[in-house]
Parts: sequence; C-alpha cells; structure tokens
Amino acid sequence: MLRTHTCGELQEKDISKTVKLCGWVGSRRDHGSLIFIDLRDGYGLTQIVFDPKTDPAVHKEAEGLRGEFVISVEGNVESRPEGTNNDKLPTGKVEVRARKLEILNRSLTPPFEITDAINVSEEARLKYRYLDIRRPSMQKALRLRHKVCKLARDYFDERNFVEMETPILTKSTPEGARDYLVPSRVNPGMFYALPQSPQLFKQILMVSSLDRYFQIAKCFRDEDLRADRQPEFTQFDIEMSFITEEDIYELSEGLMKKIFKGAIGADLKTPFPRLKYSEAIARFGCDKPDTRFGLELVEITNLVKDCQFKIFHEVIKKGGLCVAINAKGCGTYSRGQMDELIEFVKGYGAKGLANFKVEKGSLVSQIDKFFTKDELSAINEAVSGKDSDMIFIVADSLRIAYDSMSNLRKLLGKRLNLIDEKRFEFLWITDFPLFQYNNEEKRWESEHHPFTSCHPDDVGLLEEGASLGSVRSRSYDLVINGTEIGSGSIRIHDRKTQELIFKTIGISAEDALTRFGFLLDAFKYGAPPHGGVAFGLDRLMTFFTGSESIRDVIAFPKTQKAFCPMTNAPSAIDEKQLNELNIKIKK
Amino acid sequence: MLRTHTCGELQEKDISKTVKLCGWVGSRRDHGSLIFIDLRDGYGLTQIVFDPKTDPAVHKEAEGLRGEFVISVEGNVESRPEGTNNDKLPTGKVEVRARKLEILNRSLTPPFEITDAINVSEEARLKYRYLDIRRPSMQKALRLRHKVCKLARDYFDERNFVEMETPILTKSTPEGARDYLVPSRVNPGMFYALPQSPQLFKQILMVSSLDRYFQIAKCFRDEDLRADRQPEFTQFDIEMSFITEEDIYELSEGLMKKIFKGAIGADLKTPFPRLKYSEAIARFGCDKPDTRFGLELVEITNLVKDCQFKIFHEVIKKGGLCVAINAKGCGTYSRGQMDELIEFVKGYGAKGLANFKVEKGSLVSQIDKFFTKDELSAINEAVSGKDSDMIFIVADSLRIAYDSMSNLRKLLGKRLNLIDEKRFEFLWITDFPLFQYNNEEKRWESEHHPFTSCHPDDVGLLEEGASLGSVRSRSYDLVINGTEIGSGSIRIHDRKTQELIFKTIGISAEDALTRFGFLLDAFKYGAPPHGGVAFGLDRLMTFFTGSESIRDVIAFPKTQKAFCPMTNAPSAIDEKQLNELNIKIKK
Repeated sequence: MLRTHTCGELQEKDISKTVKLCGWVGSRRDHGSLIFIDLRDGYGLTQIVFDPKTDPAVHKEAEGLRGEFVISVEGNVESRPEGTNNDKLPTGKVEVRARKLEILNRSLTPPFEITDAINVSEEARLKYRYLDIRRPSMQKALRLRHKVCKLARDYFDERNFVEMETPILTKSTPEGARDYLVPSRVNPGMFYALPQSPQLFKQILMVSSLDRYFQIAKCFRDEDLRADRQPEFTQFDIEMSFITEEDIYELSEGLMKKIFKGAIGADLKTPFPRLKYSEAIARFGCDKPDTRFGLELVEITNLVKDCQFKIFHEVIKKGGLCVAINAKGCGTYSRGQMDELIEFVKGYGAKGLANFKVEKGSLVSQIDKFFTKDELSAINEAVSGKDSDMIFIVADSLRIAYDSMSNLRKLLGKRLNLIDEKRFEFLWITDFPLFQYNNEEKRWESEHHPFTSCHPDDVGLLEEGASLGSVRSRSYDLVINGTEIGSGSIRIHDRKTQELIFKTIGISAEDALTRFGFLLDAFKYGAPPHGGVAFGLDRLMTFFTGSESIRDVIAFPKTQKAFCPMTNAPSAIDEKQLNELNIKIKK
Repeated sequence: MLRTHTCGELQEKDISKTVKLCGWVGSRRDHGSLIFIDLRDGYGLTQIVFDPKTDPAVHKEAEGLRGEFVISVEGNVESRPEGTNNDKLPTGKVEVRARKLEILNRSLTPPFEITDAINVSEEARLKYRYLDIRRPSMQKALRLRHKVCKLARDYFDERNFVEMETPILTKSTPEGARDYLVPSRVNPGMFYALPQSPQLFKQILMVSSLDRYFQIAKCFRDEDLRADRQPEFTQFDIEMSFITEEDIYELSEGLMKKIFKGAIGADLKTPFPRLKYSEAIARFGCDKPDTRFGLELVEITNLVKDCQFKIFHEVIKKGGLCVAINAKGCGTYSRGQMDELIEFVKGYGAKGLANFKVEKGSLVSQIDKFFTKDELSAINEAVSGKDSDMIFIVADSLRIAYDSMSNLRKLLGKRLNLIDEKRFEFLWITDFPLFQYNNEEKRWESEHHPFTSCHPDDVGLLEEGASLGSVRSRSYDLVINGTEIGSGSIRIHDRKTQELIFKTIGISAEDALTRFGFLLDAFKYGAPPHGGVAFGLDRLMTFFTGSESIRDVIAFPKTQKAFCPMTNAPSAIDEKQLNELNIKIKK
C-alpha cells in the first residue's frame, strides 16, 4: 500500500508515529507561515501541517497544492496545539507534520465544492458523479448500502437460504410493465428480454427442490418514469417451498429487525400489525396507509342516504359513497384555506369537498339546512367530532372518494404536525383482491401478477364465475410509513389452476403456452406449494439515509428520461453494429 | 412451515419423535406387504415405511404414489430393522413410519431419472432444468456456488471493501468483444449496451474516493460462443486505490486460500509462484501453463542454425524458431504413434514434427545425417536426453512453434500420466506485453485493455515510438493448472498517458472523447493511482465441482447458440413492441 493509514484513522494513541497518508486536498488554510491542509479520503479528514521552519522544501512544494490534488504525505503524528482541537472530527486531536510530499495527480477546480452543503442541479451531480460521490453524505450512503446488503445476506445464509443468480438475458415476463429488449445477433429477428423480476425463475427453482432461495436481484422496467423510479432497480428477492404466509411474515420481520438495527440502530417491534385490504381502504382510503397518525376516514353513506342534499343524494343513487374525515382542531380554517383544500381534492378527481364546523356540539355549514338534526348528529358521532373540529366530506365513486380523501388525510397529517418523522410504522396489508378491473382496456387483470394463489375461501367464487372483484388472493404487501416496500404472495402450484387464471384474465391457452409454457410444463412434474416476497432495496435505503430520492442511494442512477449524464448512455451506435444485429432504426 | 424437518436431517437422536416431512417421491420398493419410499428434497433422502398392519388407510393411499409426486408425510422416527441400515446416507439409520399422507402435487413420469447417473443429452437437461437441478450433483454445485460467494463476500467485507452495484444498462465498453445492445424507447434511435465488465465504472469509483471496491458482477459478451463460454457470466470484480501489484497479489492469494479451503478443504500454499510472460512462453510455449508437470520446452535455434537440414535452416533464415521437447521414455513410440502426433501439431499450423530417439547417449533419427555429431550432442544436452527418451522438434514462426509445442506438451503430459488431477498449481503471469499486433486488421491493439499501465522501465520506449511489441505492461493473470482464472492490472490514472495509449492503438482523439470522454474527464479532477483484478466465478466453480463445463455450475445457462431450451429465449416479439422501440427487423 502507498499509505500506512486512512485519513479517518489517526487518534491520540498514534501520536509520535511516522505515518504515510494518501488522499485529496480539501480545504487549505495559510496561518502566518504555516500551511494547513485537510487531507480527505473516503474514511475521513486528517489535518496536515507544513512548517517552513522544520521542513522548508516540503513547505515550498505545499504552496503549489490546490483543491482536489491527490497527494501522498509522510510525517509524524502530533497532538494539536492547545485550544485547536476539533471535537467534531474523530481525528480532531491530532495533526500530521509533513516531512515528505508527493503530488500523485493534479486537479482542475471542480465544478462544485466537495461538501454536503452544495446547491447544484441534480444534472450536474450526475454528470460529475465521481466528484459527487466524494461528498461525505454519498460516501456514507453507498457504504451503508453495502452494509445493509451484507446484513441481509448474512441473515439469509444463517437460515440456510441459497443465493442464486437468475439470468439477465431471458424471456419476457409479465409484470405489467414494458420489457427492455435485446436483439440476438446469433438468432436473427429474435430478442431477449431483461427480467422485470426473477419471478418465474424463482418459482422454477422451487420446482427444482431448491426450497429456500434468495437473491439481491437487478430488475428492469421500461416505464415512463414516474417521480422516483429507475429503469434498473434492486430487490431482495425471496422464495420458499412448503410454507404458509406466516413463514414469510416471520422471515421478513426478522430481516427488517436486523437491517434497521444494523443500519441505523432502530429497534423494531415485531410482529408487525396486519390489516386486511378492505379495512385499509375503509379506514385510510388506500392500501399503503401511513399509520403514524390517526385522522381515519369514516364512510357515512348510510347516515346521509335519505338527506335532502342533492349532490350526496345523487352520488349515492349511482352507487357512490360519502366519506368523511374529522380534521381535528381545524374549525378555524379560513375561507382561503378551505378553497385550497377543495382545489387539492379536485386534483384527485373529486367534484367538491363539503365541510361542517363543530360548534357547541352541533355541525354548522352553509349546507346544514339540507340535513335533519338527527343526520347531523349521526355524522358528528361517526367522526367523534368535538368543538372546533372541521368535518370534511367527499361524495363520489368509490375510487375517487377514497383516493381524494386518502390524500387529504396525508396532507392534513403533515399540516397538523401529526407525523413523527423518526418513527417507523410497519404494516402488513393482506387479503388483496385477486383481480382488478382495467377501465381503459375494459378487462379484468391480476392485481399483483397471475401466479398469485386464490384465497382458499374464495376458490368457489372463482369457479362459479361470480364477480371477480370479490375474489381475494393470498398476497401481501409490507408498508412502512405509507410507502410500500415489499410485496409477495403464496403462488399457484398446480397447472389447472394456473391455466384457469390465465383464461380468466384473457390470456388464451395458446398465448399462455408461448409465454409461460415452461412454467406450465414444470408444474406437470411435481411442483411443491411455495410462496415468496420481494423488498425494494433502493426504497429501503432512503429510509436509512433520510434521502428524498432513490437516486441518492444508487451509485450511478439515471435521470427521469432514463439517461446517464455522465456516460451519455443511451447513445447512437454505428451502422455496422445495427447490421450485425439485423435491425434498422425506423425513420 | 408444512414440515418439521428436511429429508436430510433425521438421525438416531430423533428416534421416537413425531415428524412431518415434505418432498418428492424417489425410488419406491414394495417388500411383501410393506411399501418403502425414499422421500427426497434438496437436503437428502429419508426412508418412509407404509405398513398395512398399523396404518391400513395410509398404506392404501401410498399405493397410488408415483415417482416425483410431491407429498407430505407425518409419522414416527424409528430405527431401521437390524441389518438394513444404509451407511452411505446420513439418515441411513432411521426411517419414518407414516401415520398421515397428503399428496401435495402429482407428476408425470419425468423424461429422465432424478439421479446423478443419467445419460441424456445436455439439451434435454437444459430443457427440463427444473428436473435436472433436482439431481444431487446439481444441488451440490449450486449450493456450493452460494457458499463460495458468501466466503468471498465475507473476505472482502472483513477487509473494508465496499460491494457496489454498477449499471447494467450502460454505454459500450471496449473489451474487444461485441456488446449486447438495448434499444431505448424513451430516446428513439439510441441504445444502451450491457457491460462487458464494470471496468470503467470501477475506475470511476476510484476517482470517487471509494478506494476498496468489489462486486460479484454480471458481465455480457456477444461472442461467437467457443467451447465453454456464456453470453452472461459472473466475475469477482475488484479495484483498489493507492496500491501496487503486491497488494493485488496478496489480496488475491488470501481470497483463493479462503475459498479453496472453505469450498473443498484444500490448503493452498502462498505466495503463489510468479513467472514473467517471456519466460512462460520460452518454457511452456503459452501464457497459461499447466505447471503440475515438467516436459518444458527448449528453444534450440542457436544450436542448429548452421545445420544441413534444409527445413530448419530455412525457417531460421526467415526469423523463425526451433523448439524442442523431451518426451521422457517415449523412445519406443511406434510409427503410428508418431504419425498421430505429427497430425496433432499440424492442427496448430506446424508443417511437421522432427523426432530423435536417444539411444546409447546419442540421437538417432531418419534425418540425423543432416546434423553434425556436435549438433546432435548439443541438442541432447539442451533437453537432458537419456536413453529411450524421444526428442520432438518443431521449426516454425514463433507463434506456431510455441503454440503447437505448448499443445503437444499438454498432450504428452496427459498421455504420460504426469498430471495429478488433485493438485492445484497456481501461477501469476506478469510483465505481459502492453500491445499485441492484430494480423487481420494490421494494427497494434491492447493485449489486455487500453486502461493498462505501462511498465515503468518501458515508458521511454513508448514515448520514443520504439517497437510496440517490446513494451511491457503492469498487468498480471492468475493461472490454475493451465487455466486462466483471473486477470488485472495497475491502471493508467492520468489523462495524458491515457490519451497517448488511445492514439497508439489507433483511437482518434474525437473517438476517444465520444467513447471514453467521461473517464478522461474524471482524470481531470484528481484520479488516484489504482489497480484491480477480476476472477471468473463460473470457471472457479468447475475446479470445486470437477465439472467439465461451466454450464454445470450455472443454474440457467444457455447453449452454444446462446439459446435457453427451457424458456425458448431469445424469441420473437410482436410488432407493437418493435414499433415502440422505433426499430425494424431487416428482412
């Protein structure tokens, strides 16, 4: 090694040692005749002193040092003069008096400072990612990512799981998003697909009798990138045979306990609470509720079904719902504040937002004349209204009513400072519907994916051809503070059921064979009962670092246009390569 | 869990316990009225007994069991009747008397037996990979692969390395092979490339001050697949800053020591021997010699440069070489055996193979009349010939002479049983040439890759424009038993040298900027001295399992036509997808 220590290592116990350090020149201060340099590497900072009295030649060389020069320094560890200790720094009690200096490489002035307090565009950070990663917060995030992966791997290894690599060049899998495709040169006109997840391969591994699989797996989805998605992302991917949901819950809870403790010292309480999908919708309006605060929704359709208020009345007649929320203590909201909230719910498709102030135990509103006293009392009782509360109500179709109110709840939670940012509230959502109706394509599709088992109590419904919307599945999501971080299910393991599900969601027998023939074939030869789960590593990491974006926990992420400003990928390729691949670009 | 134990777990200490096992029905034997079943899972076999006397209903059900049915059995652990123990099986002293039986899934008769002694085509094994992996040898190989990765990860973690994920969707990197390309839908006409290795990213990470990187990395090369290559393969990928070659050697040797011990209990002696490239060629004719046996080559050009044998004479006049090998004890080879060896070297381009038998201290040959007595003595002395040895000589261009004799040496080593298959001979090859001449394209190219540093003693040669073939590099290969399993180098870390190398191998300044601009840019901002190495995991695994092919240590490999017989990838895709990607297939 060209160094004896890193720049984060030297302590009082090292005083009087001769050491050699390598690193980057951080800040430089000239005090009288002395030159001080903060020498930085990925581990920390060490103060270097160049003294013209003791080492005039080295001091002279040091005058040429500029920020981000890479240097090697040999010298003695000394205690800092009294009163100059820096208690914030692990190395803050010592400094190195330079005896030798070698400039290993020079640097231009970087486009931004190598410090956490920068204010530059993300585009610039990604273009100069090699400088961005030198910043302490990025160093910490990437090192922590390694640690979390190590903790997870140890956890699974201790439990006899086998980490398996599944192919990246493979066949289209049907997770609902678009595949990235790779033209085959050797098989002209044919394409590989990059996996949206290892779903089919991990199921095949279960059929192979490898009954405890995990992988820290790269997955690929060619989506129109929403706020915080990446074309390639990483998940903890898990599958087991001969198990039930309980085994997955227990395994996952142990994993979360271990990585939250190891990464940030958080002690999680297990088991995590569970909530059925239907109850999550009724109480929070969504299937990934933030349970750090209350403000639960209350459906009051039945209480107002006979009221004289035309808007409620008509919505209910059409099969819609009235959903209320008690905004505790918001009875004093101004007209302006109200209008803002009305605009907010309109953003989610609601046509309006009724409001009732609680005054002296009664509900007061511009529209209170359309309700009987009993109706008003019933509403207030349902939402446990107290004086100076404000009751908001949306009347709309189920989807819009819950979506808008769920978002209003989140907004109020923030506004009313009900959210403890330091708390982690875990929640399993269970009993998801097996199917959901795709309004655009006018057909039923799988809520999770078509390999999900049916709830045992609902198998009859499926066979009878009853309303598909009422069939529950054996799938489950794990939610932290309102963010879904994991999802899984007990899978189908017999061919007939799998074929029935394909048929139900409109995949023809022929199509099923072409796309999933190998899975159906595998099911002919003794597939065991099995199930699994996957957790999004990138998202998990944001909980550990407190980052806003998953781009801050990925070394080389892409922009929302799926572009890498550092390498300029994707880029044009030459005609020869296109010819070899037997493809043409459409003009 | 649906089971209390695996099928590889029950021992005498478990006798009289009530257990529940799940697994696949292996062999079934009906002995009188008893039915015996070997229940198999990924961990082993347990014998199950169905007794019509004690459990008539369960026995009746068991009559319907067929091979590969998935069942759950509840029963008591009992010792086997005297004289029926199976000492080869960890569970061979016990059996489970079935009290309850549940058929979890049925199976058709599989296309081949689930046993290691199968004789089926590899195509069938890959098509039914889920059955192939049930075989004990595949179970062992894949579980061992996990273990080796775990050992490696622990090794690096203990040494403060950070495992980092580098992108899969990235930009073309120049490792000499073709890239797999991915059309971008969001950026029409643009393409991502799958990485041939994380080379540039790991160097960028060094510039980022993450100075100890490793990754178990997927790499992709679209080659015309030779004997034992895969379109995607896995490597232990390593890079460090502020180091020299010695640090890489030490780190790598420690890694090999640990994984060979952990995987197969082999004790390796370190440090590994080192051999300069030029010496490897002179002594073994190749840069990855199998050093488990001798039979070293001897160049005798100088000894015969004045001989009367026309063929030697003319080759030497044209700048060629005469290379000899002493085939110990082969003096009795028949004419037929000789002819076979002549055909063998012709396969490597040699025009012939001269032979001299050692008899009574002298060389005897059909062509001995063309040599003086002194010349014959000198040859014999050079190869330490003893009575009944056979001296073979090829006279040809350097490349052909060494290539053919190197392969003849390997053949003779096998024929003469000189190779101890249980030994592992590690060898570092150092001081590779920096450039090699590409005869087809009539230009110099990088022997390893263009990011390799020049040997410090040869920097002058490079600048002077001396013969590029004589410039040595700071690269190194690790060889085991004649197979290269790792390769690396100390990299260039300054922009000017990097630009000079690009220019030398005919990459224009403009081209360099388009392809590697981000690396050249990064070098402007303080790149540290750095170097690294990568080891092929798939190849390493074949040493641990004794497999002939890397396909036996990969869960889902592809054929030599880069095809997956199980999933049928690559496959045709529909017009809609092509349109979205803005490409057309050329007719």
